[in-house]
Amino acid sequence: MKTIQSDNYPIYFENSLTELAKFVKEGKYSRSFILTDEHTAVHCLPLVQAQFDGDENFDIIEVNAGEESKTIDFCIGIWKMLIDFEADRKSLLINLGGGVITDMGGFAASTFKRGIDFVHVPTTLLSQVDASVGGKTGIDLDNIKNIIGTFTQPKAVFIDAAFLNTLPARQILSGTAEMLKHGLITDAAYWDALKNSDLSKPTDELIHWSVEIKNKVVIEDPTEKGIRKALNFGHTVGHAVETNSLVNDKHPLTHGEAIALGMICEAYLSHKKTGLSNGELAEIVKVIGDLYPKYNLAETNFETLCSIMLKDKKNQNGKINCTLLTSIGQCSLDNICTDAELCESLSYYASL
Amino acid sequence: MKTIQSDNYPIYFENSLTELAKFVKEGKYSRSFILTDEHTAVHCLPLVQAQFDGDENFDIIEVNAGEESKTIDFCIGIWKMLIDFEADRKSLLINLGGGVITDMGGFAASTFKRGIDFVHVPTTLLSQVDASVGGKTGIDLDNIKNIIGTFTQPKAVFIDAAFLNTLPARQILSGTAEMLKHGLITDAAYWDALKNSDLSKPTDELIHWSVEIKNKVVIEDPTEKGIRKALNFGHTVGHAVETNSLVNDKHPLTHGEAIALGMICEAYLSHKKTGLSNGELAEIVKVIGDLYPKYNLAETNFETLCSIMLKDKKNQNGKINCTLLTSIGQCSLDNICTDAELCESLSYYASL
Repeated sequence: MKTIQSDNYPIYFENSLTELAKFVKEGKYSRSFILTDEHTAVHCLPLVQAQFDGDENFDIIEVNAGEESKTIDFCIGIWKMLIDFEADRKSLLINLGGGVITDMGGFAASTFKRGIDFVHVPTTLLSQVDASVGGKTGIDLDNIKNIIGTFTQPKAVFIDAAFLNTLPARQILSGTAEMLKHGLITDAAYWDALKNSDLSKPTDELIHWSVEIKNKVVIEDPTEKGIRKALNFGHTVGHAVETNSLVNDKHPLTHGEAIALGMICEAYLSHKKTGLSNGELAEIVKVIGDLYPKYNLAETNFETLCSIMLKDKKNQNGKINCTLLTSIGQCSLDNICTDAELCESLSYYASL
Repeated sequence: MKTIQSDNYPIYFENSLTELAKFVKEGKYSRSFILTDEHTAVHCLPLVQAQFDGDENFDIIEVNAGEESKTIDFCIGIWKMLIDFEADRKSLLINLGGGVITDMGGFAASTFKRGIDFVHVPTTLLSQVDASVGGKTGIDLDNIKNIIGTFTQPKAVFIDAAFLNTLPARQILSGTAEMLKHGLITDAAYWDALKNSDLSKPTDELIHWSVEIKNKVVIEDPTEKGIRKALNFGHTVGHAVETNSLVNDKHPLTHGEAIALGMICEAYLSHKKTGLSNGELAEIVKVIGDLYPKYNLAETNFETLCSIMLKDKKNQNGKINCTLLTSIGQCSLDNICTDAELCESLSYYASL
């Protein structure tokens, strides 16, 4: 599969770990650091280390797995480790893990000594199809997702489907939601291909296709002034539900589960406001409903969810701004939705 | 005096606060925030507020004055205030204060929601001639100065000499050191002009000249790969002495006092290594020595100082890299100095 050229950096799909070893060697970095969590340290780090011939000296920085770690406290921990290990401006940070690792590692690197090089080796489906493109780095603060961050591109991304073999089914499905979104917003053919595939194990080709779609959108609009907002489909409601679940649920929703729910709500709004047909709404509800378990959305939470949406960094002037669909494969940007409309969409989901 | 055009933003010198009011009005920001410390809140904020006709609604974020505040904890405080005040991506942060406020405010703004607009209203001589140009934002961590930060340009800078009237003499002299540096590294005529001026109250013209010099250097080399390193003259030793003083002295050195000391040490190294003449070394020592009180450098501290220099973000591969002078007004980049040489330069200072 072809290497994808993103905003001044390559995304490798073939022999990716060999390419990583080559990149590190040729980069002549003074030091290399690998950021992992306790899962990737066991399942993925050995695969990476096997690529190096022993000449290379890596320091490992390990953080706890999970969104709970994506905080300024853990980020300070990473900065302090870099200081202790005497990282200089010619050091490299290799982010080996899912979205938490790539987002937080990207932020830590982009701000350490005003920016050192970093690369991503995304090890979850979600981070492969989503976090690897777009140059967004970030951490959470006060339970608001990615409220602190930068736009900084990695120097390269290395995608290896082998990492997915160690992933639980629920984590695979977390990534599938973003793939479905890519089809819904820009490419009906991709949506159809996904619909007819076994999404418990997406093929390399489907992953590549997804990255290609996201990359095209992002390159056209690096700072999210226009078409990139398409990627927010499902995320206005989804992010709020995810944030709320993270705080209140014993077993919080995954990102993909929250976005899947959000896409159903926002497809409903699309039907109401931007002309998505009844048949297409039903198709979206069916495909998503077959893949993801139903989440229990209590009506008493609706107000809280709306107030979280207002704090979302995408929203301005106290208005909630949604990306909606006009049909499958076509989207409409900048649709202001009222609290009442958003509550109605949450009720719709709850009634399914 | 002419507005200076920096990297995509203007630096105003005439009617600056009127220009600020115009900028805010024309920027159509959803919200404006003013970051101050307890000194600028009293001495400077009223001058700014007097420019606005009451239609404008500002939220004030106040932090403690002093380098001790330039920490991630205070930065988190700023982020949380922005969240509480519901700042969105179309918000503006006005940094009203010295280098601590402009550096930390710039960092907080450049990372809040992946970057909101900010402007600087520098109120100390040091921040007017130094922090207002170059796009460096930063905070300290583990007592290492500016170890965390970004390269992000403000949208505009507003320099008003009226603010300097409220400044203690010692704070004026803290800025003078950077002005002297600008002369030493690039412009013998400017050095001569400074030498023959009353530097306890630098004229507007001298401030403008200094900003012009720094701006020229920075525009030529925005990411510090080449000529911008010239600005590090005096800072290898100076930063280390400043860091050490901040931790250990009851009344720590100001930035300028530390840099003045550093310039004497590095002028000595320039004489030893890059051909600065004996006469020019003596002239530099005399001019700086007449302006700044002698600091008591204990020999027992020399090793600590060298280890701080090694951690400086400018240094790579365990080598200490200095900008030195070949003559007054001419510099030489990338001179590796050994611990022994640096200790010798510290001894030279101590022996004066």
